Amino acid sequence: MLNRKEIAVNKLKSLGERIIEDVEQMNVPSIKVPSRGTSNIVYDDEKRYYVLGDRYGQRSLGNVKQIKKIAQMVYMANFCKGLVETSKTATLRELYYVSEGWDVDFGDQQESNIVGEDLEVTLGMTREDLGLMPEEDGASVYGNLIIKEEDIEINAIRSGKSGYTISPTIDEVEFVDHDVERVIAVETMGMFHRLVQEKAYEKFDTLIVGLKGQAARATRRFLKRVNEELKLPVYICNDGDPWGFHIAMVIISGSAKLAHVNHELATPDAKFLGVTASDIINYDLPTDPLKDIDVLRLKELLKDPRYKDEIWKMEIKKMLKIGKKAEQQSFSKYGLEYVVDTYLPEKLDAM
Amino acid sequence: MLNRKEIAVNKLKSLGERIIEDVEQMNVPSIKVPSRGTSNIVYDDEKRYYVLGDRYGQRSLGNVKQIKKIAQMVYMANFCKGLVETSKTATLRELYYVSEGWDVDFGDQQESNIVGEDLEVTLGMTREDLGLMPEEDGASVYGNLIIKEEDIEINAIRSGKSGYTISPTIDEVEFVDHDVERVIAVETMGMFHRLVQEKAYEKFDTLIVGLKGQAARATRRFLKRVNEELKLPVYICNDGDPWGFHIAMVIISGSAKLAHVNHELATPDAKFLGVTASDIINYDLPTDPLKDIDVLRLKELLKDPRYKDEIWKMEIKKMLKIGKKAEQQSFSKYGLEYVVDTYLPEKLDAM
Repeated sequence: MLNRKEIAVNKLKSLGERIIEDVEQMNVPSIKVPSRGTSNIVYDDEKRYYVLGDRYGQRSLGNVKQIKKIAQMVYMANFCKGLVETSKTATLRELYYVSEGWDVDFGDQQESNIVGEDLEVTLGMTREDLGLMPEEDGASVYGNLIIKEEDIEINAIRSGKSGYTISPTIDEVEFVDHDVERVIAVETMGMFHRLVQEKAYEKFDTLIVGLKGQAARATRRFLKRVNEELKLPVYICNDGDPWGFHIAMVIISGSAKLAHVNHELATPDAKFLGVTASDIINYDLPTDPLKDIDVLRLKELLKDPRYKDEIWKMEIKKMLKIGKKAEQQSFSKYGLEYVVDTYLPEKLDAM
Repeated sequence: MLNRKEIAVNKLKSLGERIIEDVEQMNVPSIKVPSRGTSNIVYDDEKRYYVLGDRYGQRSLGNVKQIKKIAQMVYMANFCKGLVETSKTATLRELYYVSEGWDVDFGDQQESNIVGEDLEVTLGMTREDLGLMPEEDGASVYGNLIIKEEDIEINAIRSGKSGYTISPTIDEVEFVDHDVERVIAVETMGMFHRLVQEKAYEKFDTLIVGLKGQAARATRRFLKRVNEELKLPVYICNDGDPWGFHIAMVIISGSAKLAHVNHELATPDAKFLGVTASDIINYDLPTDPLKDIDVLRLKELLKDPRYKDEIWKMEIKKMLKIGKKAEQQSFSKYGLEYVVDTYLPEKLDAM
């Protein structure tokens, strides 16, 4: 079986080969690019995440307006082939600057990012597979998981208090061994350190993942891989507000914007274990009043197909009714240990 | 010699003991709190960072307006004593929620943060020494450094591609061994990964530190410790704009806001190795025009005592003159390897 790198190189090569073939056969070369317009982004009820529909556009060298875009795409594909073949990566920002040396440079990074997405969607691979990395690293991981990165074995319980950092090249990481039964991801590093200090990894036989807000693509890929490859249930424990809900939901069902790569990123079996409106009432948590923007966002979520389950609708409506939100850390009203000694066991039991 | 924890517990205890003593001797208890007002923040030319002057305020239980503040401070000191004695930590956010159980709870987190700073400045210790942690982790470190965290030895060159993460409890970390001659800190994780990929750690016998923008307190503490304890020169390699300059300068000479803890955080011997206006010209870098806010900021820096060296004044004026700024990653115009193969050796040579 080909590995991801070999597949990427083959796909990149064949993009060029098809163009050469067209030229040799005296055809006008053209590239089929699946459409990423909103009308082609659909929520797939069976897969439980956003996917692209089957509409696509045709870019043709016979169309003067499209010549530069195709040329940029071919230049970029060639650059990516070099990256993958030499086991290197570049950030999107670096790629943009590299293009200054091309005959078809980009006007701004917005333009080069779009061509990057074109390449992703055309080849059906993530841009990470093509060596193009985001600027920022992923989440922190703590617990009994041993992984291998370039022949170095790393134990995520012996990497320091802040754990092992998921790097953008997470797909090159091999899972060697583990001794956990689940994964609990939390929104903030404050809560991550709380769970580490209270030894939640022992109490719940769990990996602890610190998301640092909206989960990076590498983090989502990691969660999907531990869920599917290691068969570990994934729980996402966020703040009780629309933003906390949605950080979890993007992990679960992907985002519309990345519909073309959700098959690599979404973890539809992951469960929300965070603060709900019911928790706010049942645990009498310290709260903040919902702001206008929170209310607006909650109402948007009610219309979002990803929140179609009855439990979500009920909790969102209840939050709108009580007009309050609460952070995870608010459990420390009952002492720092409460969240690990009382709250999490009760929530896990109820699952 | 007492360790930092024992010193912290002693200082916290004596705060309470002095109050009890006052009460027993029928004196009105009071606490001396050094002033953090702007008029008491001075740049110390000899130390080369901001320090507090010798003005202070007196908080007295004889003053009705000050009773609550003193009570909050004593409650907080007591909570911190518990933290340090049990080797625990809490975030400022958790502390705020914990105070909900006190008779003198805080109106908002702003209020509890200020009392936290009062405690820092009164005891002359960092709040990290008192167990109060920031929400976010520090920088990433890659290279030949072995450290020890709670009896676990961690090798920063075997912690994964994203390196070892500096945790807020960096002062409990012991430096066990190292095989480097310097430290190069870079502003972005994009550049961090570039230096790791191009094996800059071998080429320059260096630790690579990824600052992730404005350096966290833990990062600044780490850089100070490697500079002073391991005698390693520290170079800061940032973008060529006023924000990149200032991220470096806060590492070098501290911030005015934290004048009371700069003796723990500032590294006056650290050197700026980032992109200068001269580099922009000499290397013909891709640039962006200075925005109004950049110009405003550069003019502020010209008046800042931390930028009093002639070389800074010259470079800032030159940048204002050419009206352009450039990012570190713009060197990739000349290929991804250029920054490590050409630029950094030339800059280090010039030092």
